[in-house]
Parts: sequence; structure tokens; C-alpha cells
Amino acid sequence: MPLDAAALDQIFRAARTHNGFAGPITDDDLEAIYELMKWGPTSANSCPARFVFVRSAEAKARLRPALSPGNLDKTMAAPVTAIVAHDLEFYEQLPKLFPHTDARSWFAGKSDDHIRSNAFRGGTLQGAYFIIAARALGFDCGPMGGFDNAKVDASFFPDGKWKSNFLINLGHGDPARLYPRNPRLGFEEACRIV
Amino acid sequence: MPLDAAALDQIFRAARTHNGFAGPITDDDLEAIYELMKWGPTSANSCPARFVFVRSAEAKARLRPALSPGNLDKTMAAPVTAIVAHDLEFYEQLPKLFPHTDARSWFAGKSDDHIRSNAFRGGTLQGAYFIIAARALGFDCGPMGGFDNAKVDASFFPDGKWKSNFLINLGHGDPARLYPRNPRLGFEEACRIV
Repeated sequence: MPLDAAALDQIFRAARTHNGFAGPITDDDLEAIYELMKWGPTSANSCPARFVFVRSAEAKARLRPALSPGNLDKTMAAPVTAIVAHDLEFYEQLPKLFPHTDARSWFAGKSDDHIRSNAFRGGTLQGAYFIIAARALGFDCGPMGGFDNAKVDASFFPDGKWKSNFLINLGHGDPARLYPRNPRLGFEEACRIV
Repeated sequence: MPLDAAALDQIFRAARTHNGFAGPITDDDLEAIYELMKWGPTSANSCPARFVFVRSAEAKARLRPALSPGNLDKTMAAPVTAIVAHDLEFYEQLPKLFPHTDARSWFAGKSDDHIRSNAFRGGTLQGAYFIIAARALGFDCGPMGGFDNAKVDASFFPDGKWKSNFLINLGHGDPARLYPRNPRLGFEEACRIV
């Protein structure tokens, strides 16, 4: 059965990428979003995403030099900025997450490319689940790719195990600061039925 | 305002990766899922995902040799299998999709790595949106990474512009064929607040 129209609007059709936030988000809210999005599927239930919620002035100051000019002010002003990252040693969790077979051996000691592409794919899927889960719980997101990943990694993940993917500003969006919506590709442009 | 508990269950908490399907999905259903998921955000609205819905016996036969043994029978039996792909020339659509600046120049003629990582990230985000949109409309998904991407690409995308990412079996799931649910990482394992 489809969700009702208001729910479809909230998670997709009327949801927007926000540039300004008029309301806060608590630590309990962040945990609630994680506890919802965590159920989304990943390959072999590998769950490689890791989330660092940047809230304090000290941590925001560490993020600042990595941001592109267009993302700077809005990110400094956002209640929380999530660093969506992935753990290159995600496979160490597989004995717990996928216990019925030795899935760890599919990755441990294998090529860096194989490990990185699984971590990047799964972590990105989970980043998308996070955005939709936040919207489903009544929050707004401002996801961003415009930043220097290497600077974020050096500052937040100096041991090299976690790698940044993208950022999401989080809170209750201010509709007055939305930009006009851009178009999307039509079904016939993006899809084929064969 | 959060969605009601039944809606949160349907898109995340009670939704499962299905292995068998007891009901069909029409071409109009596939278009409805696309028309919902297309609103999900991507970097510079680049929308690099492309979806090939494999329904005919002829197309299923072309998919067959690329499938891993564990995914073979269930994929052959599924009403439709979506190939989630991405277009390495996605940037040619940017004058339409992100018209207020010359975003095409951020990619055209740049390094293959830069193009591929944006296409892979955006296409993966959109694959996740597709899964959640299908669930929101009352369908079930069986996403899979276990297949030979090179074989799928050679058979379905011989010009090399689109690249396969992952597969999703689609229909109305048969709850009798679900496996027990695997655990997820706790908030304190996957997240930090700084």
C-alpha cells in the first residue's frame, strides 16, 4: 500500500535541499535518525558508513578550512553538520553483522580497490538513507559535496581508517532561504524497460 | 513532524531485502517509482543514475551469465530486475539540470577519476532513493551486489557510456522467503558527536 500523499511529499516531492536553518536538532534527534536509517540495506549488511556530527564551535572551526566558499557561511551557521564517512576496515564488523558465513574473508587482505569501492558504495547508500530518514522524522537536510575531503580526513580521521564522503547540514530548514527548484530528467531520459 | 509509525516501518524498520516475489509490478509502477525518487538530491543536481528494467525473457537471459550463483534463481524468477547504472557523460545534462551556472565545465575534459567518482556517488545515492521510493509506494526490493559488472556492461551498455552499479529485484515480496534479519551497528559504534 502506498504511503499517503503528505508522506510522499515530506520525504521526496516537497523536500528540498536547505541553505538556512530556523530551528535546532538535539543529540537525541541525531540518534533517532541513525536508529531509523540503520535498517537500510547494504551489501552483505556491511554497514560501512560512519557519521560524525559536528556541533561544537571547536569542531566547526576544524571543518571551516575544508569548505568551499559557497558552503562556508551556511555550514558555520547550521545547528549540526554531519560528515558522512566510511570505514575502510568495515569488514572487521562482518562476523557480527553477517554471521552465517565468513564474509570478512571476502575483503580482509584483498585489493584496496575492492575494499574502497564497497565502502564508498555502501557508505553512500547509507548517506542517502540518512537524508530520507531525517526528512521522515521531520528534519531538513542540506547535503553538500563542495569541500576538500583530504583536509577533513586529516583533521577528523588522522589514523586514515575513516574517509569522508559528503556533508549534510541538519536542522529545521528556513523556507525563505530556499533556491528555486531545478528540473529532473524525465523517465524516458533516465530509464529503459527491456 | 515525523511520519506515523506505520510509514516509518514501511520504508525502514519493517522493510526487508526480499528473495522471492509473490506479485507483479507494472511498467506504470516502475515509472511511478522513478517519478518519486527523482526528487532526491545529488551534487549540482547532476542526476547521474540510469535505470534499466530487465523484464523480458530475452533480457533476463542476457543478465543470467553475469549473476553469482546465490543470486541466479531468485533474479530469473523476479518480475523485474533493475540495473542501477550511471552515465559517465552525465555532465552533458547539466546545462538543463543546473542551468544557473556553467556546471558542465566542472567535469567536461576533467580527469576520469573526478567524473567516475561523481557518477558513482550520485548514482548510488539515487539507487538508495529508488529503494526507499519503491517501498514508499508499496513495493518490495531485493538489492544485490553479487554479479559481474563487466559482463552486464558488455551486454547492456556496449558503447561504454553507462556503467552498472548494483541490481534490484522488484515486485511484491513473499514474506515466507525472507531470511532472519541481521543486526546493525549501534549508534555508539557508527557515530560520534563532536
